[in-house]
Amino acid sequence: MIKTGIIGGAGYTAGELVRILLYHPQSEIVFVQSSSNAGNLVSDVHLDLLGDTDLRFTDALPLNEVDVIFLCMGHGKSKEFMEKKELPENLKVIDLSHDFRLKREGNDFVYGLPELNREAIKKALKIANPGCFATGIQLALLPLAAANLLVDEVHVQAITGSTGAGQKPTETSHFSWRNNNLSAYKIFEHQHEGEILQSLSQLQQGFSEGFNFVPIRGNHTRGIFVSAYTKFEGSLQSANELYRNFYNDHPFVVLAEKNPSLKQVVNTNKAVLYLEKHKYKLVIISLTDNLIKGASGQAIQNMNLMFGLDETTGLNLKPMAF
Amino acid sequence: MIKTGIIGGAGYTAGELVRILLYHPQSEIVFVQSSSNAGNLVSDVHLDLLGDTDLRFTDALPLNEVDVIFLCMGHGKSKEFMEKKELPENLKVIDLSHDFRLKREGNDFVYGLPELNREAIKKALKIANPGCFATGIQLALLPLAAANLLVDEVHVQAITGSTGAGQKPTETSHFSWRNNNLSAYKIFEHQHEGEILQSLSQLQQGFSEGFNFVPIRGNHTRGIFVSAYTKFEGSLQSANELYRNFYNDHPFVVLAEKNPSLKQVVNTNKAVLYLEKHKYKLVIISLTDNLIKGASGQAIQNMNLMFGLDETTGLNLKPMAF
Amino acid sequence: MIKTGIIGGAGYTAGELVRILLYHPQSEIVFVQSSSNAGNLVSDVHLDLLGDTDLRFTDALPLNEVDVIFLCMGHGKSKEFMEKKELPENLKVIDLSHDFRLKREGNDFVYGLPELNREAIKKALKIANPGCFATGIQLALLPLAAANLLVDEVHVQAITGSTGAGQKPTETSHFSWRNNNLSAYKIFEHQHEGEILQSLSQLQQGFSEGFNFVPIRGNHTRGIFVSAYTKFEGSLQSANELYRNFYNDHPFVVLAEKNPSLKQVVNTNKAVLYLEKHKYKLVIISLTDNLIKGASGQAIQNMNLMFGLDETTGLNLKPMAF
Amino acid sequence: MIKTGIIGGAGYTAGELVRILLYHPQSEIVFVQSSSNAGNLVSDVHLDLLGDTDLRFTDALPLNEVDVIFLCMGHGKSKEFMEKKELPENLKVIDLSHDFRLKREGNDFVYGLPELNREAIKKALKIANPGCFATGIQLALLPLAAANLLVDEVHVQAITGSTGAGQKPTETSHFSWRNNNLSAYKIFEHQHEGEILQSLSQLQQGFSEGFNFVPIRGNHTRGIFVSAYTKFEGSLQSANELYRNFYNDHPFVVLAEKNPSLKQVVNTNKAVLYLEKHKYKLVIISLTDNLIKGASGQAIQNMNLMFGLDETTGLNLKPMAF
Repeated sequence: MIKTGIIGGAGYTAGELVRILLYHPQSEIVFVQSSSNAGNLVSDVHLDLLGDTDLRFTDALPLNEVDVIFLCMGHGKSKEFMEKKELPENLKVIDLSHDFRLKREGNDFVYGLPELNREAIKKALKIANPGCFATGIQLALLPLAAANLLVDEVHVQAITGSTGAGQKPTETSHFSWRNNNLSAYKIFEHQHEGEILQSLSQLQQGFSEGFNFVPIRGNHTRGIFVSAYTKFEGSLQSANELYRNFYNDHPFVVLAEKNPSLKQVVNTNKAVLYLEKHKYKLVIISLTDNLIKGASGQAIQNMNLMFGLDETTGLNLKPMAF
Repeated sequence: MIKTGIIGGAGYTAGELVRILLYHPQSEIVFVQSSSNAGNLVSDVHLDLLGDTDLRFTDALPLNEVDVIFLCMGHGKSKEFMEKKELPENLKVIDLSHDFRLKREGNDFVYGLPELNREAIKKALKIANPGCFATGIQLALLPLAAANLLVDEVHVQAITGSTGAGQKPTETSHFSWRNNNLSAYKIFEHQHEGEILQSLSQLQQGFSEGFNFVPIRGNHTRGIFVSAYTKFEGSLQSANELYRNFYNDHPFVVLAEKNPSLKQVVNTNKAVLYLEKHKYKLVIISLTDNLIKGASGQAIQNMNLMFGLDETTGLNLKPMAF
Repeated sequence: MIKTGIIGGAGYTAGELVRILLYHPQSEIVFVQSSSNAGNLVSDVHLDLLGDTDLRFTDALPLNEVDVIFLCMGHGKSKEFMEKKELPENLKVIDLSHDFRLKREGNDFVYGLPELNREAIKKALKIANPGCFATGIQLALLPLAAANLLVDEVHVQAITGSTGAGQKPTETSHFSWRNNNLSAYKIFEHQHEGEILQSLSQLQQGFSEGFNFVPIRGNHTRGIFVSAYTKFEGSLQSANELYRNFYNDHPFVVLAEKNPSLKQVVNTNKAVLYLEKHKYKLVIISLTDNLIKGASGQAIQNMNLMFGLDETTGLNLKPMAF
Repeated sequence: MIKTGIIGGAGYTAGELVRILLYHPQSEIVFVQSSSNAGNLVSDVHLDLLGDTDLRFTDALPLNEVDVIFLCMGHGKSKEFMEKKELPENLKVIDLSHDFRLKREGNDFVYGLPELNREAIKKALKIANPGCFATGIQLALLPLAAANLLVDEVHVQAITGSTGAGQKPTETSHFSWRNNNLSAYKIFEHQHEGEILQSLSQLQQGFSEGFNFVPIRGNHTRGIFVSAYTKFEGSLQSANELYRNFYNDHPFVVLAEKNPSLKQVVNTNKAVLYLEKHKYKLVIISLTDNLIKGASGQAIQNMNLMFGLDETTGLNLKPMAF
């Protein structure tokens, strides 16, 4: 049994980790840390877990008792944590913030997108878990980059659910405002662009085409709907082959033959991709659950790889469907 | 033209007043007061009014320049306001808080439910505008009380939209929580019970039957869905006659012959009632928009009455329908 | 491995059975029958199963190859099926329609509510799986009936999600109509009343108090929110003890200490109950997922019992939470 | 008073016409034709009109008694109607289908986008009312075309509400499917592309840049959210000036200074536009209500122009806001 600890246990991604790990057959939760909730039941914060667990939040950090920790503390705080704490030598770390996603001098975290870096993840001690938009968008574009086929500007629009914005009540997460509403934000300036371009350049050296990204707040709770397109000379058939080959041995990426809808992936770790060809453009639809494949599910997928388990262990989740 | 002022202009009910008054053919808005927003455009807070008005919030209170003021400051603050301010002698006041709804020594406000107190409202200087739940529930029960037919316990359940809880973001107004969700609150203890019982007793002296009220948070934005029932010996036909007669000359109350749905009243000042008889019970469905008939629309209906206008002036609102 | 067959595989309850059975560790799906879809992929109808299974619908009924069949054909058709087909002697049958829920001469189905009839279910060959409203309402009332404490009228309101009405597009399942909408239907006349009263009478002989039930269409997809109340002389504490004792060894029923919300149970087989005492009334909130505890999850819970498995096998489902 | 008739009165656009015309101060509804509903109350189909009107559907077509007819019969049927019927010489016709939107030999309808063709509309006898997507997208792009500034490919994504797909229940309008869901359709192939390109070419002769359009089904009921971008050399300020000048005397188009959200226009005839400049691209957000500015409101705006009324008559609608 892999012994796990969760740090920053009160937020959405931590809750989702607990939900999945509770029934993961080869791991157990040793502690869920939360300063503000220390002593309280985990199910007092993550209310749906009532009846599933009697775990309580702790303020302690018994790092010697676990094999892996998940950092769920919010952006900026993971870096601080890593600098301040002395970690046991072999303790594995999976960070869900954006603090270590970008390569730079002294950053020894592996970017944890299994469909891009599986072999490196297997050997890694530290993982920077990708962002939610970044996951959905990269999965849409990686096969093209791997074939050096990103030869023109890339156009991306992505609609995200409210859980992507976290737990804190704000104006744009107020039900009266958001219900039946839509709005764009951080147009062409979303912070996930960096990690996306980094991955595309990893596969297609010298990639420097324009990347246009319009993020949109949807009035749903879970899921990211990506539509992307770019110039593509080949046929639809050749595109489908390219994608099928690229994702051939990746269990969570599914290539749909029919135009899919977002709820096909909600509450699962799957990514559904779908291609159409129009004139000289290839259109790619990419669907993921932002809290699972876009966050906590992918973190556990990474954990599975790091510990030599089957990648899907504990991640065969019942789809919500409706 | 009736000159109006709105005090506490940043909240939901004030916004709704502005939306309606802007196109009211016989009134004009002289000022919209808001300390926290003084100097800003009204459409910077009530964003849908962009293009409809260039009004700015003011911190001044030019009470001599208006014929009527609407108090939208939140519960408790109206009382404070009335105690501190010396008002021009003939200035009419319509208070949307609960501060003056209950009769007591020294309270000279008339309870502003036109279907109960129309003649008194016409002559009133000060109006206590009813609560939203209270409006929907009273309209369901008044005809029975008027005929002394409340002879057994009354059972009421009402489901409210999120706008009923106001503008402030809270846990239960968070989109991620509330979307697709339902919860009960203040079961059998809702603060509107007082004004409901007061009105029922006004019509049926000595009314003292049990009143059971379960309020529920719905996952919609606007509207209150009331289902109520109580013992009733007569036929369905006699009940329909009773209700039709009671509301005969009340333009906003409509008796439906077919089982209605909430959206039939959304964005209007109407109340739709519908009756069924089962065994010894009369079931009443009552539908209203909590922000209009349950708040700001009713306030304007009261204003119309106080100034001798046709009750419906400015209140023939296009239904939202979808 | 329990070999299972699903008959009438294109509907919502069949889809939900497949979703759960696919990852049930001690059963396998041998066939999913659907005349209209024979030959097609199951994931062409239940689209979220894309990538989870390559099963195809069949028109055949290889009843000798399975240990248990689930009947998901719609009300009326199960009876027809049982009359026409000669079943292998030991083939277990779990019927999700209402055809066999009511006791009558010649009906040898056991009513499959484990919290009421667990021992009988363990020995049963044929199970009539309860209705969705019926499940949520019975769980709210059974402990009172078992203690002969239903001594006055019972008042029940229940709000159901759209999946309760099945797959067929209708006026009241049209998104433009139902979004943000609410409506009552079959007031005091819902067809589930029969099985509810039958169960209450089973525990409290001679139960004949009035049962008042207002069913409401909610604008959510999954879940039934029940609020019920009746006269109760004891204290809240004694009520909680009564309920805790009654459900003590029933793993899916959870008694909440804090007022819960519907999404705490969505996409799980759990039922969350919550009690309040007001004046002389006990109020019970009961929350279930209509497609799982109210249908397919309960069917699998019954299967587990019938085959001597732990009741929770395959039913530790990740909550949807949002 | 302008005397109006509505043909094909049972659908969504006809309902919305009735809702607005009922309170239009300078027009009256003479008849609402619907073969399938002849004799029934209009409020039996458009249920929210209960209490607003006692109008009944008719099967007659008293064309001599009206000044203008609105054709709401669905695509293809308007053409048939115009061929078969002999219309009174001066009867004005406003067609809400797509039958006469594209210029061709013998088509004497004027394309009814007031912001493009106001003077021609004033003199027209027959109007082809624009499509809903087409309205929102054209308003986003017309100022650029008018200045010959469409010099590179145009990228458009638009998310539509469910009412855009009409009244008929379908798989993709089923609440259980659509709630919390998103899907793309007719990618790069939407039928409104023709009228959009026709208008752009009208203003910018020789316009032949690529036009890329991804339509998306949103899980809201009303409103179209357009995000568009294209190459633009000038500054944001110059773009705002260009747009402000172009729409200067058009009362329903509002240029927002802050990033807006869709509900700012819902239940109004307004179009809110908003611009951002990033790198070499101008991004335009365009918000409209598909049933009002995108259909029936615009039809009445056209009627106002055709009869010499102020363009806004009867169209100062209370925003829904929530």
